[in-house]
Amino acid sequence: MSTAKAGDLALLVTAERREFLVKLQAAGDFQTHRGVLRFEDLVGQPWGSVLHTHLGHPVALLRPSLRDILLKTQRRSQILFPKDIGYVLLRLSVRPGMTVVEAGTGSGALTTALAWAVGPEGRVITYDRRQDMQALARKNLARVGLEERVTFKLRDIAEGLDEREVEALFIDVPRPEAYLAQVSEALAGGGVFGTILPTANQVSALLAALEPHGLGLAEVCEVLLRFYKTVPERLRPVDRMVAHTGYLVFGRKLLANLAPAEATQAEAEQD
Amino acid sequence: MSTAKAGDLALLVTAERREFLVKLQAAGDFQTHRGVLRFEDLVGQPWGSVLHTHLGHPVALLRPSLRDILLKTQRRSQILFPKDIGYVLLRLSVRPGMTVVEAGTGSGALTTALAWAVGPEGRVITYDRRQDMQALARKNLARVGLEERVTFKLRDIAEGLDEREVEALFIDVPRPEAYLAQVSEALAGGGVFGTILPTANQVSALLAALEPHGLGLAEVCEVLLRFYKTVPERLRPVDRMVAHTGYLVFGRKLLANLAPAEATQAEAEQD
Amino acid sequence: MSTAKAGDLALLVTAERREFLVKLQAAGDFQTHRGVLRFEDLVGQPWGSVLHTHLGHPVALLRPSLRDILLKTQRRSQILFPKDIGYVLLRLSVRPGMTVVEAGTGSGALTTALAWAVGPEGRVITYDRRQDMQALARKNLARVGLEERVTFKLRDIAEGLDEREVEALFIDVPRPEAYLAQVSEALAGGGVFGTILPTANQVSALLAALEPHGLGLAEVCEVLLRFYKTVPERLRPVDRMVAHTGYLVFGRKLLANLAPAEATQAEAEQD
Amino acid sequence: MSTAKAGDLALLVTAERREFLVKLQAAGDFQTHRGVLRFEDLVGQPWGSVLHTHLGHPVALLRPSLRDILLKTQRRSQILFPKDIGYVLLRLSVRPGMTVVEAGTGSGALTTALAWAVGPEGRVITYDRRQDMQALARKNLARVGLEERVTFKLRDIAEGLDEREVEALFIDVPRPEAYLAQVSEALAGGGVFGTILPTANQVSALLAALEPHGLGLAEVCEVLLRFYKTVPERLRPVDRMVAHTGYLVFGRKLLANLAPAEATQAEAEQD
Repeated sequence: MSTAKAGDLALLVTAERREFLVKLQAAGDFQTHRGVLRFEDLVGQPWGSVLHTHLGHPVALLRPSLRDILLKTQRRSQILFPKDIGYVLLRLSVRPGMTVVEAGTGSGALTTALAWAVGPEGRVITYDRRQDMQALARKNLARVGLEERVTFKLRDIAEGLDEREVEALFIDVPRPEAYLAQVSEALAGGGVFGTILPTANQVSALLAALEPHGLGLAEVCEVLLRFYKTVPERLRPVDRMVAHTGYLVFGRKLLANLAPAEATQAEAEQD
Repeated sequence: MSTAKAGDLALLVTAERREFLVKLQAAGDFQTHRGVLRFEDLVGQPWGSVLHTHLGHPVALLRPSLRDILLKTQRRSQILFPKDIGYVLLRLSVRPGMTVVEAGTGSGALTTALAWAVGPEGRVITYDRRQDMQALARKNLARVGLEERVTFKLRDIAEGLDEREVEALFIDVPRPEAYLAQVSEALAGGGVFGTILPTANQVSALLAALEPHGLGLAEVCEVLLRFYKTVPERLRPVDRMVAHTGYLVFGRKLLANLAPAEATQAEAEQD
Repeated sequence: MSTAKAGDLALLVTAERREFLVKLQAAGDFQTHRGVLRFEDLVGQPWGSVLHTHLGHPVALLRPSLRDILLKTQRRSQILFPKDIGYVLLRLSVRPGMTVVEAGTGSGALTTALAWAVGPEGRVITYDRRQDMQALARKNLARVGLEERVTFKLRDIAEGLDEREVEALFIDVPRPEAYLAQVSEALAGGGVFGTILPTANQVSALLAALEPHGLGLAEVCEVLLRFYKTVPERLRPVDRMVAHTGYLVFGRKLLANLAPAEATQAEAEQD
Repeated sequence: MSTAKAGDLALLVTAERREFLVKLQAAGDFQTHRGVLRFEDLVGQPWGSVLHTHLGHPVALLRPSLRDILLKTQRRSQILFPKDIGYVLLRLSVRPGMTVVEAGTGSGALTTALAWAVGPEGRVITYDRRQDMQALARKNLARVGLEERVTFKLRDIAEGLDEREVEALFIDVPRPEAYLAQVSEALAGGGVFGTILPTANQVSALLAALEPHGLGLAEVCEVLLRFYKTVPERLRPVDRMVAHTGYLVFGRKLLANLAPAEATQAEAEQD
């Protein structure tokens, strides 16, 4: 049975589902809104244990999952939500050992998920032009022990990406249509790109700019996640939900144009 | 620049987005509804190329992504959709090198995604009591070269699971509440389990049965994926969408009870 | 051009969309969070005018619409939302001059909408066993001048409804399945009934009880309303939305059983 | 007990929920896919009766509700769906006895609902520049006995509307922004307008054009309707749903500008 050790990252969860992501210490106190836990009482306990604060409130001791880590990313910018990240990883076809390119880094939530999914043999190369954002992302990754899988590049991607023959690339900037030459140059033939855009206008602008850069097979979608209350005899959706984070756009680099112009026209006229 | 070889799995996509998943042959023809492609014209081409059928219709030659593979899973049962699988992988915190347990195998769509995500160093152990389903799943996995990462066990899970200290387990059977003792016995403390259930009644039945087996922190949700037409000057959702595949339920094994009974009652009374 | 008069009900809306439903007085002040308006400055103004508080903030002077009135219903219970009420009115086929029965009254939001839709020639008969709720509903209706179209009956509907040959009946109680004999007795052949239920368990219980009472053609649905930010160059859904109010259930009284038992079974097995 | 008479409009519903809207005749046959019904067997039966075809299949005899009528509108254009119409009626605050203006008529589905809701004392004035569409709409309205409440005007609304001081106006044309001068001129101060637009681009174009015409308090929303299978022990959403019909836009005529330009800017920057 595996036990918690000093230095481990742990998730503490109270009965009312408040969650705390914490690095376990050899000694000292951890303060919750339900009372104090002593680190020395946590260290050495099996994962999955339920301990009690000095006020008697139960707290579960868990190894953090990727979802837990993502939700606790320290942020100074809008981050991707788990609902979107799950679909992005699938759509980018991220697999152990591969190299993925990201532009820009932001607070590093997606960077974290990519580093998780490529594993110790893989690599994430992430660009951002803001040093403060990359410092924050680096800190977030270091906290969960994934920083060694990531190469940070402090650069405006307008200057181009160093990589070539990239299989998967995520671009998270407000005007991705301004950098499609750079994206296309970096991508391998058939390589997948993705982005997330908060507004419909941005999606239109991006879609209109893809083809001249050899980017095609566009897919636009939204992921909606609806939670339910978990009382068995009163099953029902929760009252309020996140209605929007962003539109996801995916596509692939093609070496020639797939869709004749008339086809697009025909599709337009069906509406 | 990487090129397609005989023996490679390829995705062929027409201008109107019909997709074909095909093993490239050294010779012979591939028939589409838009005309014939000769394998010898495909082999040796760079990935991302656009070729033409004998009728002149363009077809893109792509390395299949995980999404492509999942959508083309041969099925004799309801399979999980990419929208659900993306969130399941995240929620189960699947990472390269880990061992994941699945019960049952079904047609093997989730098995494929799990095998993809754990990588060559990881392992998927999957149970099913139907030999025909496991044979189909094995075939689906072999087609994409992932069968070596999977251990198939032909068994009714009522007889118990062999594994212990499992970090992540997905159970996909109509009445998961009947197997919670087996699930709990296999899970490590803090381990994550997940399931998908088509009906609200099943979710209620499962939720009511969790606690006596030390399973807690339940989360119930639905993932909805809404696609948009990709004409830039006429951006709009597609007319119809998949409205339901199933309710996803997740939870973790706790070594003691976290929520006092009164708390649950209080929550119930809020509704 | 029509102008606001003392005694009129008015909606005042600020630039940031705060709304106030107010009965105009001949004199006195109206306090908003953006400053004070004097009633004598409002009275006599054309509807649609924009006035300014003593702090210079603009406020629109509007005749309240049905939506405005419903959103401002004073409540001591969960009320139906406009999104649901719009569909209920349509589904119950409410028309000017008809008689509609409601059980129970609650805070009177739906009662208000029904009274609005049946017009001065129609009638709403509404039952509730709680005097305090009917007093509140009566006050809400009086405020908007619709109380004369409504007959309030203070009674537990377990004792039966007085009406017969009712064309449309809405029942809003936690366990409608307990009152189906009463509902069926009141309904005309082919008459429509509707209800709203917060939990899936309640829906199942109701559906299971319909047939013995000659109630059939059940329809279960949810209405979801998703709002968008209205900045033209940044069109996007708002961040959060109401995810659930209730499941709507509708059906009709049949004089004999329509669906043979086997058909229902067959449908069940398709899942 | 009310009975069906020759000349009545009836809804016939089979056990598998196929629906037929039919004018009852004194004699003759009505053909369904489940066999033949004789009109003389239907006439004289109480509403809500269940009759049987010559093949023994049961069919319910119902007075059509507004929903039934709308779903059976004969169409040569996209029509509004009941889910949208319910919310439109509420949002336009349609009430018995009022006058509503519609541009354009189309196949007449919304015209029918408006005529239903304003009642015999009210009036719907509807514009279309296509004679064939108005002929179809007129036929649809005549079939349900509502044509006398409607004034048809065959005109391009670019030429202006005849009405003034209109309380509620619905404009259903592809480029409503081109007719806002006409809309504004017809509306009373504080009057409500609404429209439905299939694409996000159209919504942006409309929103950008409102203010110079004194149209404000814009609301943009989508109504989503999700149906459930009605098997009580297997409650679940249906597999597929209508994902999009259109974006609804509503607003009101203001006699002066409510929102200072800076406020809009501030809102934009929040995104």
